[in-house]
Amino acid sequence: MLRLEYGRMLQDGLDGEHGLSRTQLAELVRRFSGVQAEVRARRAGGEYGFYDLAEQGSAIRSITQFASGVGQAFDHVLVLGIGGSALGARALLTALRAPAWNELDDEGRDFYPRLTILDNVDPASVHAALGRIDPRRVLVNVVSKSGSTAETMAQYLVVRAWLEEALGPAATRHLVFTTDPERGILREIARGEGIATVDVPPPVGGRFSVLSPVGLLPAALVGIDIAALLSGAERALRDAESPDLLANRPALHAALHWAADTWLGARIDVLMPYSDRLRDVAEWYRQLWAESLGKRHDRRGAEVFAGPTPVGAVGATDQHSQVQLFMEGPFDKVLTLVSVDDHGVDVVIPGRSELPADLSYLPGRSLNELLAAECQATSGALASAGRMHMLLRLPEVTEDTVGELLMFYQIATGFAGAWYGVNPFDQPGVELGKQLTFAAMGRSGSGSVPTPPADPGDFA
Amino acid sequence: MLRLEYGRMLQDGLDGEHGLSRTQLAELVRRFSGVQAEVRARRAGGEYGFYDLAEQGSAIRSITQFASGVGQAFDHVLVLGIGGSALGARALLTALRAPAWNELDDEGRDFYPRLTILDNVDPASVHAALGRIDPRRVLVNVVSKSGSTAETMAQYLVVRAWLEEALGPAATRHLVFTTDPERGILREIARGEGIATVDVPPPVGGRFSVLSPVGLLPAALVGIDIAALLSGAERALRDAESPDLLANRPALHAALHWAADTWLGARIDVLMPYSDRLRDVAEWYRQLWAESLGKRHDRRGAEVFAGPTPVGAVGATDQHSQVQLFMEGPFDKVLTLVSVDDHGVDVVIPGRSELPADLSYLPGRSLNELLAAECQATSGALASAGRMHMLLRLPEVTEDTVGELLMFYQIATGFAGAWYGVNPFDQPGVELGKQLTFAAMGRSGSGSVPTPPADPGDFA
Repeated sequence: MLRLEYGRMLQDGLDGEHGLSRTQLAELVRRFSGVQAEVRARRAGGEYGFYDLAEQGSAIRSITQFASGVGQAFDHVLVLGIGGSALGARALLTALRAPAWNELDDEGRDFYPRLTILDNVDPASVHAALGRIDPRRVLVNVVSKSGSTAETMAQYLVVRAWLEEALGPAATRHLVFTTDPERGILREIARGEGIATVDVPPPVGGRFSVLSPVGLLPAALVGIDIAALLSGAERALRDAESPDLLANRPALHAALHWAADTWLGARIDVLMPYSDRLRDVAEWYRQLWAESLGKRHDRRGAEVFAGPTPVGAVGATDQHSQVQLFMEGPFDKVLTLVSVDDHGVDVVIPGRSELPADLSYLPGRSLNELLAAECQATSGALASAGRMHMLLRLPEVTEDTVGELLMFYQIATGFAGAWYGVNPFDQPGVELGKQLTFAAMGRSGSGSVPTPPADPGDFA
Repeated sequence: MLRLEYGRMLQDGLDGEHGLSRTQLAELVRRFSGVQAEVRARRAGGEYGFYDLAEQGSAIRSITQFASGVGQAFDHVLVLGIGGSALGARALLTALRAPAWNELDDEGRDFYPRLTILDNVDPASVHAALGRIDPRRVLVNVVSKSGSTAETMAQYLVVRAWLEEALGPAATRHLVFTTDPERGILREIARGEGIATVDVPPPVGGRFSVLSPVGLLPAALVGIDIAALLSGAERALRDAESPDLLANRPALHAALHWAADTWLGARIDVLMPYSDRLRDVAEWYRQLWAESLGKRHDRRGAEVFAGPTPVGAVGATDQHSQVQLFMEGPFDKVLTLVSVDDHGVDVVIPGRSELPADLSYLPGRSLNELLAAECQATSGALASAGRMHMLLRLPEVTEDTVGELLMFYQIATGFAGAWYGVNPFDQPGVELGKQLTFAAMGRSGSGSVPTPPADPGDFA
């Protein structure tokens, strides 16, 4: 079970005049009932669809059945998707399968398929992927809730032609679409051609979809226990019902970040797991936090230009990259260090006869102890420098704890939307870019793209 | 040759009351001679050692000789390093070798070795790497300038024992150290045991070492043309000599970022290449920019708590993740969109008979056109929303252009140090964390680690 330690968000826990005061904490506690009431009312009104993802009995059964049946006929799963259609699956793969999964041979992967996620329309990436994957052994999972995402549909057209060139009409048996149960182009194509599909529940938006079939199908195909993911998620949901802010960890996480931003001007939020396996959870979190909270207007239509900037980091690696800035730069950040109690394996550091005295503290200890010491030491050093941060502790990295962690962040984001007063489920700011892309691509009725001004200077 | 377009950093190029004024630009131009004089004086005094990396005749010859001789006897290169000892090599691999390099078979890699970089002491990663790599076929490159980096030396001890278990005394022939030419533990061990070494030039610090043997040796081993990297870098160096700020692109890049931070409060700097291959260049840049500029004290010892926060992103992918925030959040960012004219391959989007009218703009166009349209459209949309950004244009992604790009950023960072008035070459803020790690690991004479305060709440 995930633990959250927040003593070093408060003045008591930090050197100097930094951090939130006890009075401010009390104010958050006092206001929380209103925030929670708002979230409940909006849930009742149909928002916050991701709260229902812990209960997906029939979807789980059909995904598991597909994965253990048809799915096992393939050596490679190729996911076509972008944003929320890619980040969740990648976070699950990195966290819950062996590192460098695709480099392992069949036995090393327990005969589960390799997994490649194409989340860009970079021609070099797409060309290379189709060059190294065998179309006769691939299952292509096209993921777009709307069925009209430009990048994903462009990928689909390219990959579909590649499949047909190798397989002819059998190409359809190498496709599975993850899309809206009723609407959209992918649904239409699937109906017309008898292509397999799994449904994205309509109330669940892209960046909240990792625990929906969007993330669960690729996860199940590579052998991740998706039922265990959801039972972990359920624990986070139960947590989120407490009316006491200090016992409601996702709500507290949201409240402390909002307060640090609003009252202390700390609007950069760093998620820094001390675990390579959680690296892509931090990437996934960046979309969740940025796209949900970065809003020009609040719910009442007032201009607020709100939104903290999420930053991903990895410990101990980033101690040699970002931590200098976190220690000495502006007081504009809140960090969350994530530690893992049990890494599943102990790697002892052996001694050597020629070892100089300087390094004699290493032999006999383990990499586990070193990594834990670095996390503890960084927290201590941050506190000495007056830098607000929390510690999030995971007992281990398993389906159960990762399911809890992902749901924890989704709930925290939902609460943060209420604290900021913005709608965490829309993304109006990307519409203009889409329209201008259509215009640049010559889609009829799409207007024209403004050209950049000439540079004032005189460049070669 | 790299082009920098900065019209959309200025009020003229942006909607609303945003961006730098012409007066502010003129002020930067006026002040530049002082900044350039300072950089020159400090170079003469021995700082800015990376300026000399374009001229490494003998080092290049010995690295090339090693790589094409001994180096080709191995199927796998394993780099042990952290921070600057890892980020540069990874940026070069991702940019200049085929995507998913390690997944390709021998022929797909032109018989060059695979490359794995271990830049953490995560026991799960280390254990997995040693499980999947064959010790009989690996060359281990241990990279630490000082020779005493705790993480790297811990990795070394683990990997050394693993090599010896498989190879006995022949283990030394599977090692090459990249370290200081005279000093440090690695140098001592190499001398004692006859282990191959390459030298890190003493005036070059870790985060400025990508174009030194630190980055060049792994690059050469996987077949990257390191002479071409350096000739590209030379072009950036020539550029940096212009006394006219508007014609001195790295200096201009630095000046505009400093001005946006200092005069307009925009202290988040986003590097967003529209190319998957440049993804890890953005990661490399994060260390360079953060660790160089994030400083508590300026050169005169005054407390400044300076330093912009660098953020990496990838286009078009992050249009579905971060761009909502960039468009609508606080006006606290400067973006650099990097576009690539020629991706080396054209991927045409084929048509299909069942295609709905909505998607009829895609067939016949290419992914290249779509990606370029998205970059252009995002720039246009950012301008409409009053968001400062630049465009950095690369003709293609080759050794020559990547060498130029990396040196461009190193020079820009050096200039930024002068604008901010800080020393871009030290990292005093990580010292306390190191001391506390030693203390937690029980190294004698290292004091003790402060324990976090108990949480005020009552947690399970």
